[in-house]
Formats: sequence, structure tokens, C-alpha cells
Amino acid sequence: MTAANPYWSALTHRLVPYVPGEQPKVDGLVKLNTNENPYPPSPKAIAAIAEAAGRLALYPDPESTELRAAVAERHGLGIDNVFAGNGSDEVLGFAFMALLKHEQPLLFPDISYSFYPVYCGLFGIEYRTVPLRDDFSLALDDYTQSNGGIVFPNPNAPTGRALPLADIEALLRRNTGSVVLVDEAYVDFGAESAAGLVRKYPNLLVTQTLSKSRSLAGLRVGFAIGDAGLIEALRRVKDSFNSYPVDRLAAAGAAAAMRDEDYFAQTRDAVIATRERLVAELAKRGFTSLPSAANFIFTTHASRPADELLAELRARKVLVRRFSAPRIANWLRITVGSDEQCAALLAALDGILG
Amino acid sequence: MTAANPYWSALTHRLVPYVPGEQPKVDGLVKLNTNENPYPPSPKAIAAIAEAAGRLALYPDPESTELRAAVAERHGLGIDNVFAGNGSDEVLGFAFMALLKHEQPLLFPDISYSFYPVYCGLFGIEYRTVPLRDDFSLALDDYTQSNGGIVFPNPNAPTGRALPLADIEALLRRNTGSVVLVDEAYVDFGAESAAGLVRKYPNLLVTQTLSKSRSLAGLRVGFAIGDAGLIEALRRVKDSFNSYPVDRLAAAGAAAAMRDEDYFAQTRDAVIATRERLVAELAKRGFTSLPSAANFIFTTHASRPADELLAELRARKVLVRRFSAPRIANWLRITVGSDEQCAALLAALDGILG
Repeated sequence: MTAANPYWSALTHRLVPYVPGEQPKVDGLVKLNTNENPYPPSPKAIAAIAEAAGRLALYPDPESTELRAAVAERHGLGIDNVFAGNGSDEVLGFAFMALLKHEQPLLFPDISYSFYPVYCGLFGIEYRTVPLRDDFSLALDDYTQSNGGIVFPNPNAPTGRALPLADIEALLRRNTGSVVLVDEAYVDFGAESAAGLVRKYPNLLVTQTLSKSRSLAGLRVGFAIGDAGLIEALRRVKDSFNSYPVDRLAAAGAAAAMRDEDYFAQTRDAVIATRERLVAELAKRGFTSLPSAANFIFTTHASRPADELLAELRARKVLVRRFSAPRIANWLRITVGSDEQCAALLAALDGILG
Repeated sequence: MTAANPYWSALTHRLVPYVPGEQPKVDGLVKLNTNENPYPPSPKAIAAIAEAAGRLALYPDPESTELRAAVAERHGLGIDNVFAGNGSDEVLGFAFMALLKHEQPLLFPDISYSFYPVYCGLFGIEYRTVPLRDDFSLALDDYTQSNGGIVFPNPNAPTGRALPLADIEALLRRNTGSVVLVDEAYVDFGAESAAGLVRKYPNLLVTQTLSKSRSLAGLRVGFAIGDAGLIEALRRVKDSFNSYPVDRLAAAGAAAAMRDEDYFAQTRDAVIATRERLVAELAKRGFTSLPSAANFIFTTHASRPADELLAELRARKVLVRRFSAPRIANWLRITVGSDEQCAALLAALDGILG
């Protein structure tokens, strides 16, 4: 397993893979490190999965028609405005290949989803990072420069900060020559979706996932919303890579989850309420948190270094996440868990902070 | 949805996607066109899926450890000799990117899995096709030429013809400078697997799928077996594209299916027995079939053109598949279904042939 295996392609030698948050194989940990939802998925999703398990000998629908219809209905769009994939990571990967590789560099924030530069490495895409402001807000004015595409999360990750929809539309009015991809993995927890703008802007692509607000991280389903021309590009790449990326169980469970609006609203509201309480409790303990529109809190302590807190929390069986990029190395990203999980976190912090 | 969308990458414009066999949305068809297994998956796989559905809010293990262990055990190998992905199509895609892109052209048969040239188009890999002999047998001697990799299915698709393991090992002894990928999607129905050779040849990669012999086409799970150095290359590409391509339900169901050896042997033997009967019945009706080591039969009729037969079968609600490549345009690929499905096929043929 050497780094100079003669059978590896040149690309394989060059790659710097993404490192996901730890998925511990032991039980009994308070897992607040990968932004999973503390509530189970809709019972209707579980029922749909059980039903679909009766037809597993047959290939799934390669077009994921039912799932795309469920997404289209929710957003008041047509089925040809929706693409479904194996998690929004796969959908993003297809979008980078299909729509964001051009002669000019792709633009994205210096602090954002750390998979973006990895895709660029995989697909040979030139990119330029655009610094966030000192308060970690995203300055869309800085994106009105020559580019081959623009991508940013809204709310941003790992900061949790949201952009107003009016600002995104202002960018779209000015940037008409390349694709603007708004990565809305966390949008349901407090930001405004840009999905409604896709009829107006043929260069807008919006991605969402069922991993967070639909409690289905284990099922791997994400989707993109956009003009039919952009969706067709994603389909062409998918059909050149893997005809059936969404399996029968994933398609059925995801479609049922998308249609259970009541359960969705109830669990989303519970996460938001817990988040607001947790921000207040952290403040009492010397933490400064950015305003969060996501299911996590980005926070820094007045006196204790983040790496030290991370290690002490780990010793107390509480997992949170820290990123090593210099501007944010002293910050922790803490997933909003259940009330019980957040109480365990606060108790651990009380032990650490004395 | 024009072919000259200004937002598409140059690659997207160039792509010629793969076209999978029809997945009809109406019931009541005798579906013998995509090589699905007529028997349901192991009940143990269904039970494992139901159990895993209780933990869907959490991400799956990005390394698919349990599934890889089940595959490794079956083949008497270590877990670091196994890579798991979203169907063997995804695994093949990763292998093309990670291991088969070099300065010399990739070699594969002129008649074989039609996804291979599609991957080459997607990843910019030069290739050269090597003609099968007139009887559609694969002449491995023709592959001892300068190359950046070799890939072929065994048994071959869509012909169903198998290569003896000794011939594959003879090729491996001579071709040590590049990866030899043996695509064993159909191996369980009558060919010898090369998996046992991976300890001896660090350039041998074997891919298999659970879609055919494990009756799990709807679950999308495939795997590669090889030297740890080759597996590491696949992992690097996966972790640069999608950290969690195998969802919780797919991982659990596939691991249970791999461990249910009795059920596997029983359904495989049933398919083989039906295949032999079907070949004999087709012969009585004027068909010449290639010897098949797969769960399909490649066959041509003495007097009736294949396209005409395909259309007449379709009109009688029986789906089979034909490929347009000139050398095989007068052949049909017929999946071995249940005895009832095969009886329906034969009855339809009797009606057509008068």
C-alpha cells in the first residue's frame, strides 16, 4: 500500500481525498460531530422501505421518477427540473464535472464545505477561493469577477451563517454567464431556499439532501433543482458513470419522507428550538457563537483553545468537530442533538470548564 | 434542453452515455431483458434490511467494513483486499479512473460490456478494442501488446462465453506491467472466478456484483477484489467523490446475502437448470445459442431476423434485448427467467414462428 504503486493512474497519485467526520463503531458516544438529525426518519419512509424490499431482485427505475416527482411537487416545479443521486455529495460531484469545469476558475469561499477543492482535484478544475469577511459572512460582491462557475453553501458550512435570498438573486442578475450552484444541505433549519428562482435563472442550480432535515443520512439521497438544461447535463454524466445510483429502498424511502410535510415540520422545529436553547447555554459558559441557520452551532470559547476542548470532550465521550484551516482552527462545530444529548454536552463542558 | 447549452462543460457536450435495458413502468410483462434473477433475494437479506432501517438517521460506515468482511471471508482474503461500491458499475467507474488511465491505450474486446467505452469517454481514457474470434470466443493471446490496462468480462457479455482460469493466469504471467480487470458480473452461473489469484498477482482486479446471482439488482451493491495497493487506489477515488456510496440498508442486506451460501447455491442451481432446458427448447425452434456460463442466453435464429423477433416478442409482452453492433445485430440476449417466464417466452415464440 505504497504511495508509488506502479498501477495507479497519475490522478490517483495526485488526489487529496476528503476526510469525513468520525463514524464511531462503539456505542455510548454522544455524537455531535457529523450533523445528523437526532430524530428518526418519518414512519412513512420506514413503511415505504419495507414495502419496496419486496421487489429487490429487479433494477430500480434509472430515472428515479417517483422520487423526482415528490421533490418537484414540494417545490412547485416540473420533474425535468429535478435530478436525484446517491447523496448530495454525488450530485455535487456530477455538477462539478458537468457544469463547473470551464476555462475560467471556479469560485467558492475560503471557509466552506471542504469537499469542493477535493472535487476540483478529482476532475481537474481550476479554482480560486474568495475570503469570507472577518465576521465569517459571505460577501457576494466579491464574486462579480471573471469565473467559470460559483458555488457556496447556504447556510454556509461550517459557519452556519445564512445569506438573504435577495442577495443571491442580486448575484444571479449580475452573473449570467456561468452556473451559480447554491448548496442547500442545511437550508431547512433557517435559511430561504433559492429553489423558487430556477424558473427565472437558467444558470441556477440548487442542491439539497435528505441526510439532515429528513433524518436520512443512512439512506444516501440528495437532489438538484434547476433549469431542465442543467438537469440534462447531470443526467448525461450519471448515465456515463452509473445508470442506477439510487436504489429501490432509497428511492421509496426518500419519496415518502419528502411527502410527509407534517413530520418534517415537527422535527425541524424541535431542532431549531433546541439550537436556540443551546446557544444561550453556551453563551453562559463563555462561548461566542455565530448566528446559525443550520442544525449545528459554530462556536469559540473566550479562554479555552478549541483543540483542547475537543480532546477533553472526546475523553468524556462527546464528539464534536474542529477544522484545521487557520482562520477557524479555534472554533468548534457542534451538531444540535436531542435535548438529552445537548444536556450531556453541557454537563461535560461544566466538568471541563470547572 | 439543447445540445449546445452554454453552461455545460466541454466534457458534457462530448459524452455518449450508456443506455441501460428498458425498466418498464407497467406490470404484466415477461421481463427477460436486463439479466435480473427470477428468484427473490435471501430472506436473511430482507431481515437484515429491516433491522438496519432502525438506524437511518445516522451516516453509514464510510468503509463498509461489515460488508467487506463478508466478501473477504467468502473468498478467503483479507478485508484490505475488498472494495465495496454502489453497484459494480460504480466500482468499475472508480477502477477506470484510478487504475486504467495511462499513456498506453486500454484494451478490451470489440464485443463486450458496452459501458467500457462510455467510461473511457467520461474519464478521457484512450482505448483499443480487440476483436473476438469468429465464434465470439475471446483470444487472450491478442492482448499481449503494449497497453495501459486490460479489461474483459468473464463470462463475456452479452455472449455468455467463459474463459478457463488457466488462460487468465497465462495472461497475468505475461502482462505484469498493467492492471488486468476481470469483470465477473456473471461468474457464479458457470465460470471459474479469478479471485483466488489476487494474492499472486498484484495487478489483478476482479469485480463482482450482487445484482445477478444474489438477486439484489434493486439494492445496487458491487465489489472489487485485489491486492491492497489496488484497493487503496479505489478508496482514494471514492473518498474524492462520495464518502458513503453504500447506504446502511444496502450494506446490511448485501452482507447478509453474501453469508447465506445455502440460499445462494439453491437459486443459482435453479437458474442453471432452467438455462439448460431453455437452450434445448430454443434449438428445437431453429435457434443457435452460444454455450452460456451466465444467467442469459445469446442466440440467433436460422431464418428470422433478430430485430423482427424482438419486436414481435415485445408485442406479445415479452422483453428481450438486442445490441446494434454490426457483428451481433442478428442476435438476441435472453435472460434466464423462472420456468414460468421461460414457458411464456417459448409460447410467444411458437406463436411468432407459426
